[in-house]
Amino acid sequence: MLGVRNIEWVGDAHTGHLRLLDQTVLPGETTYLDCRDVQAVWDGIKRLSVRGAPAIGIAAAFGCVIGAQAAAGRDEAAVRKALAAAGDHLATSRPTAVNLFWAIKRMQQVAPMTLDALLAEAKRIHDEDAAMCRAIGEHGLPLIQKARGTLASTGVLTHCNAGALATGGIGTATAPMYLAAERNVPIAVYADETRPLLQGSRLTAYELAAGGVDVTLICDDMAAQVMREGRVQMVITGADRIAANGDAANKIGTYNVAILAKHHGIPFYVAAPSSTFDMDLPTGDAIPIEQRAAEEITEGFGKRTAPLGVKTYSPAFDVTPASLIAAIITEKGLIDPVTTENVKRVLGHA
Amino acid sequence: MLGVRNIEWVGDAHTGHLRLLDQTVLPGETTYLDCRDVQAVWDGIKRLSVRGAPAIGIAAAFGCVIGAQAAAGRDEAAVRKALAAAGDHLATSRPTAVNLFWAIKRMQQVAPMTLDALLAEAKRIHDEDAAMCRAIGEHGLPLIQKARGTLASTGVLTHCNAGALATGGIGTATAPMYLAAERNVPIAVYADETRPLLQGSRLTAYELAAGGVDVTLICDDMAAQVMREGRVQMVITGADRIAANGDAANKIGTYNVAILAKHHGIPFYVAAPSSTFDMDLPTGDAIPIEQRAAEEITEGFGKRTAPLGVKTYSPAFDVTPASLIAAIITEKGLIDPVTTENVKRVLGHA
Repeated sequence: MLGVRNIEWVGDAHTGHLRLLDQTVLPGETTYLDCRDVQAVWDGIKRLSVRGAPAIGIAAAFGCVIGAQAAAGRDEAAVRKALAAAGDHLATSRPTAVNLFWAIKRMQQVAPMTLDALLAEAKRIHDEDAAMCRAIGEHGLPLIQKARGTLASTGVLTHCNAGALATGGIGTATAPMYLAAERNVPIAVYADETRPLLQGSRLTAYELAAGGVDVTLICDDMAAQVMREGRVQMVITGADRIAANGDAANKIGTYNVAILAKHHGIPFYVAAPSSTFDMDLPTGDAIPIEQRAAEEITEGFGKRTAPLGVKTYSPAFDVTPASLIAAIITEKGLIDPVTTENVKRVLGHA
Repeated sequence: MLGVRNIEWVGDAHTGHLRLLDQTVLPGETTYLDCRDVQAVWDGIKRLSVRGAPAIGIAAAFGCVIGAQAAAGRDEAAVRKALAAAGDHLATSRPTAVNLFWAIKRMQQVAPMTLDALLAEAKRIHDEDAAMCRAIGEHGLPLIQKARGTLASTGVLTHCNAGALATGGIGTATAPMYLAAERNVPIAVYADETRPLLQGSRLTAYELAAGGVDVTLICDDMAAQVMREGRVQMVITGADRIAANGDAANKIGTYNVAILAKHHGIPFYVAAPSSTFDMDLPTGDAIPIEQRAAEEITEGFGKRTAPLGVKTYSPAFDVTPASLIAAIITEKGLIDPVTTENVKRVLGHA
C-alpha cells in the first residue's frame, strides 16, 4: 500500500546504486537522489534527505556496499579496506544516530566479504526493518478494529511522523493504519501538523495520502475539539526513547495529545520497536529535554511570523508518563497495561 | 504601559482625522493609516487593519465623525444626513460585527448633533472601552498576585489575542498583565502562537513586548510541557461569546489549553466584558462552530507546507465548558465559581 519508497537499491551489487527520496523538498516535490558514491550517501544523510533512525541505518548499509564497489574484482582484503573507509566516513554524517553505527558495524562483520554478500546483508537489514514495521502493524490493527465499535470507521489521531518515511517499511505509528487500508478496515486518520517543523503536514499527510489512507490535516490546537466531536476513537504516536517503566519521550506535543485523549476517554497508544527501549532508564524523569532554535518558531515557513527579538521557549520533545499510555505496540506484542513488569515480559528481559 | 496605540483621533472635530495601526503588516512593520474620509475607515475595517469587536466599534464611531465633517458649517439636518450616509456605509464593512452597529446607532442619537458633540461621543465610546479594560485588569491582578505564592514571578499563559490591539484600552485577557507590569508585580507571560492564523505570535507577543511585559512565544503543542515544568501558574484567555452558564466560545485551541491546565492543577480564567455574555443561550452547546478555509492551514505562511489537495478540518473556535473555568473576570467583578446563578448575580440580571 506504500505510495512512496524512501530507500531503494537499483541494480546489482557490482554496478548498482542507492536511490533516496529527497525528503527535504517534500511535500512540494517528489524528487529522488541517485547516490553512486559514498559522499552522495553521506550528503543525503547529513542534509536530512533521508531521516528517521531505522532509515538512516539502512541507507548507511547500502552506502557501505557502494564504498566496497571501489574494490570490485580485487581480493577480500581490498574489499574490507574499501568498506572500512566508507564506514568511517558515513559514521560522521549524523554523529548521534545509534542505528547508523549499528548498521555499519553489522556490514563489517559480513563473511565472506564479497560485494554480493554485502548487498545481501544490506537488503537483509532493510527487510528486517520492514518486517518489524509489519509486525507492529499486525499487533496494532486489532486495536483499530476494536475501537471502531458500531461506527462507520475508526478515527485515529497521530502526531509528528513515525511513518514509512522514517523506516524501511510501513513505519511504526503508521503501520496499523497502512494495514487497515490494505485490508479494507475503514479508518479516518487525523494528522496533527506538529509545530514547529510540521512533520505532520509535510510528511505524515503526504505519505498516508500517497498510500491511499484517508487522512485529514489539523492544527495541533484543534485536537481537543476533534476529540470532543467524536471524530477520534484512538491515538497512535511513535516514540524516540522509552524508559523501563514505559514513560515515552517523543516529539514535542505528544504529551499534550495524551492528556487530551485521557480527558475524552480515548485510548492513547505508542507504537515503537523494542530497540527504542532504554532499560537503563528506570523512568522518563532523567531524559534531558533539548532546546531548539528560536527561528524554527519565528520564521519557520520562509517568512517571519513573530516580532524581531521575541523570546521563545522551544523544547524539542516531551515525555508522556506511562500512566497516560493505554498500551505500547511493539513488534513482539502489546505491552498492556504499561508497567515495568509487562515491559520486561514482552521484551523478553524477564 | 501600552507600547502601541491602535486607534487615535488626530486634531479637532472639524479638520481632524482617524489614525489606525495597520495590523495587517504586523509584526514586521509598524505602519499607520491616516483615514481622512469614510471610505478609508471602511477599508481599514474591511481589510482587518483594525480588528477585535470593541476596536471595530470605536473606529466606526470616529468614522461617523469623519462622515459628518462633509456637512461642516451647515445646519444640524445636514450633519444628521451626512452622518446617516456614513453610518449606512460603515455598517456594510463587517456585516456580522455587533459592536459596529451598536456604535453607529449610538452616534446617531447624539444631540445636539454638532461635530464637536459627535467627536466627544466617539471619544466617550473609546474611553468607556478603555475604562472597561482597566476594570477587568483591576479584578484580574489580584489573581496574578495570589498565584505567585513564593515564586520569583507568576507565569501566565495566554492563547490568541484578547489584547490591546483588539480594544480601545489594555485589552481583556492582557489587562491584568499590563497592570502587573505597570505596578511591578513580576510576571512572565507565555503566548501560544495560535495556529492557524498566529495571532499569538503576530499580535500578542508584539503588543506585550512593545508594552514592556515579559513575554515568551511558544508553539501551541508545547503548552503541556511548559506547564509540567512549573513555568505557568495560571492561564488567562479572552472569549468571543459566553453562554448564561459560563460556557465560553473562543479561538480554536482555547479548550485544549483549559484541559491541559486542569490536568496540571493550574487555574484557567476567562477575561471578558459583560457585553460578551449571551443570556439567551443557556449553555454553549448551541453555538455553531464555523469552518475555516484549508489554505489557512496548508499555506498560511507564504509558502505551501502541506501536500496539494490534502483534506483539512479547521474549526474556527471551540467552546470551553464552565466546569473547566476557575473564574470569569469581567469589568463588574469575578464570576467565581462559574455557575448560571453567579453569572446573573455579577452581571446584575438577578
